[in-house]
Amino acid sequence: MASAGASAIAPTPLLKDELDIVIPTIRNLDFLEMWRPFFQPYHLIIVQDGDPSKVIKVPEGFDYELYNRNDINRILGPKASCISFKDSACRCFGYMVSKKKYIYTIDDDCFVAKDPSGKSINALEQHIKNLLCPSTPHFFNTLYDPYREGADFVRGYPFSLREGAKTAVSHGLWLNIPDYDAPTQLVKPRERNTRYVDMVLTIPKGTLFPMCGMNLAFDRELIGPAMYFGLMGDGQPIGRYDDMWAGWCVKVICDHLGLGVKTGLPYIWHSKASNPFVNLKKEYKGIFWQEEIIPFFQSAVLPKECTSVQQCYLELSKQVKEKLSKVDPYFDKLADAMVTWIDAWDELNAEGASAKLSNGKA
Amino acid sequence: MASAGASAIAPTPLLKDELDIVIPTIRNLDFLEMWRPFFQPYHLIIVQDGDPSKVIKVPEGFDYELYNRNDINRILGPKASCISFKDSACRCFGYMVSKKKYIYTIDDDCFVAKDPSGKSINALEQHIKNLLCPSTPHFFNTLYDPYREGADFVRGYPFSLREGAKTAVSHGLWLNIPDYDAPTQLVKPRERNTRYVDMVLTIPKGTLFPMCGMNLAFDRELIGPAMYFGLMGDGQPIGRYDDMWAGWCVKVICDHLGLGVKTGLPYIWHSKASNPFVNLKKEYKGIFWQEEIIPFFQSAVLPKECTSVQQCYLELSKQVKEKLSKVDPYFDKLADAMVTWIDAWDELNAEGASAKLSNGKA
Repeated sequence: MASAGASAIAPTPLLKDELDIVIPTIRNLDFLEMWRPFFQPYHLIIVQDGDPSKVIKVPEGFDYELYNRNDINRILGPKASCISFKDSACRCFGYMVSKKKYIYTIDDDCFVAKDPSGKSINALEQHIKNLLCPSTPHFFNTLYDPYREGADFVRGYPFSLREGAKTAVSHGLWLNIPDYDAPTQLVKPRERNTRYVDMVLTIPKGTLFPMCGMNLAFDRELIGPAMYFGLMGDGQPIGRYDDMWAGWCVKVICDHLGLGVKTGLPYIWHSKASNPFVNLKKEYKGIFWQEEIIPFFQSAVLPKECTSVQQCYLELSKQVKEKLSKVDPYFDKLADAMVTWIDAWDELNAEGASAKLSNGKA
Repeated sequence: MASAGASAIAPTPLLKDELDIVIPTIRNLDFLEMWRPFFQPYHLIIVQDGDPSKVIKVPEGFDYELYNRNDINRILGPKASCISFKDSACRCFGYMVSKKKYIYTIDDDCFVAKDPSGKSINALEQHIKNLLCPSTPHFFNTLYDPYREGADFVRGYPFSLREGAKTAVSHGLWLNIPDYDAPTQLVKPRERNTRYVDMVLTIPKGTLFPMCGMNLAFDRELIGPAMYFGLMGDGQPIGRYDDMWAGWCVKVICDHLGLGVKTGLPYIWHSKASNPFVNLKKEYKGIFWQEEIIPFFQSAVLPKECTSVQQCYLELSKQVKEKLSKVDPYFDKLADAMVTWIDAWDELNAEGASAKLSNGKA
């Protein structure tokens, strides 16, 4: 316990050479100006969505590589079919081409938030803290993250569980515009999130959660191949379920592999609500489908022979095909895309595969 | 969703005639002076522990009944053996004799805390809010209590689950002295909890937690018979696991019956750490035993025929006898006491049983 306190007080390592920031976008990245003090030390992977002939401006001084649709098609060939187009789900291509241990992904309408004392929040630093500290998925601690400075495990917390589990995912939150679905946006157009909850907690084993991709970090080595954002946008019957899909798959696999998922701090400032009418169109089918998807994931069991993320993910794709295809033929296609994603991941991440990537523009 | 917001803004009912405050004590209740503005409207049930000939002074103006050991023995007869002596576990006698729907129990070293704005926290009002709002045990909401003003269910939360579940328990927290076990107290003698986390959340189904009895409210009609604080103190090999035991039983039964357990707000100010050396003596066996108790409760399954709290509790007592007696003969005795507790509860709470209680001093 002494060491927990001590490690919480130690300065957070920068992980400069171990973390990539992945940003999906269709526009100039002016939002990076505000993040400059926090992001400039890191390498950016920009995944340009939509028209590949458009030139995306990146502010001076940032180190980046940029992939547009032509790059994705060239690099993945026929396997590019698993990467969504005209949807921010395309960001997962960036996870695949990164060679770093950690990924932070953020939307381009997210700005630096302030904590209650008025200080600018270094979201990335908090994510790194979250990822480097263990998680506690097997028992709930009523003072939340026990590894945080000024906190610990409370009376009644079994001592054998205090080492915790490795943390695979750090899910950050949003001040100002909350991440609501279209029906809630329509009903509460003026609602803003103003509550700063000073807390990080582990989502317990066996519990699913709605993972938002707006402000999300993860350990690519631990869980990367499960961070597939599915088939959304152009040519697909659904949108805005990309991060949700990834979250459900990730959580089931983390639970199986004994890895932790944290949520809470850090906050970013989400500046602009997307159009609820457009969103309703994208979400429409998902509103019905999720009623069957959730019970599917809640009852999904992975055989203990599945010991790697890839094995788990391929097994999950089989179960999707078997149990969700009857909901809609879309899931048959999605299950195939899950397999393609793993093929592409393994190909790009094999020994000596880096040559293939050298033509990302930088 | 509109109604969620609306109900969150409505004033919290006082529940004056539906809530009892249960206080276990061995001393004069001077601490009530500070609570007067919040507690005076309510009826108090004081459970006097230790020497029954000692006179406990209660500040003027409070409406109360007081039970000492002689009263407990007279009222319960041989069944009084299930009520602990020389341990604050005796408080559960107060739950049994109450005739109200809700119970709030608080330790006599807990004072009114202040929120970050400096305002005194009406802990009881927040507990009532928690108990009257539904819980969300079946899916995690990343903005926490979705029924709270300024919050809602986020994107990806299944609509069929938004009605929530009835809330059976509201577990409040502590500023200043945290509820640590003896080893942690010894290692971190100066640690104080100064972090005010502005949040209430539902502990997900299937997840156990360390329930502390210091600042706790519950719905007696929904879960009362499971709130047994076990055999602790005088003549027992263990102490300081009374509330933990109750919490594990309660959580397993709430999960089985589809009821919710919330934790977080409100905070009280816990004034004085108990002696860590004394605590270590009390906790010693529990530190080992909990390593087997937790897996027992984590894997406990109640048959679906158990539809009342009493049935669930008696079934659990059988499983305790069967599976924990091999850990220590104490659990054999505890399993019997669990049965006695239910017998006593049912006797006191049967139609026309109130005459038996009329001799509590007031």
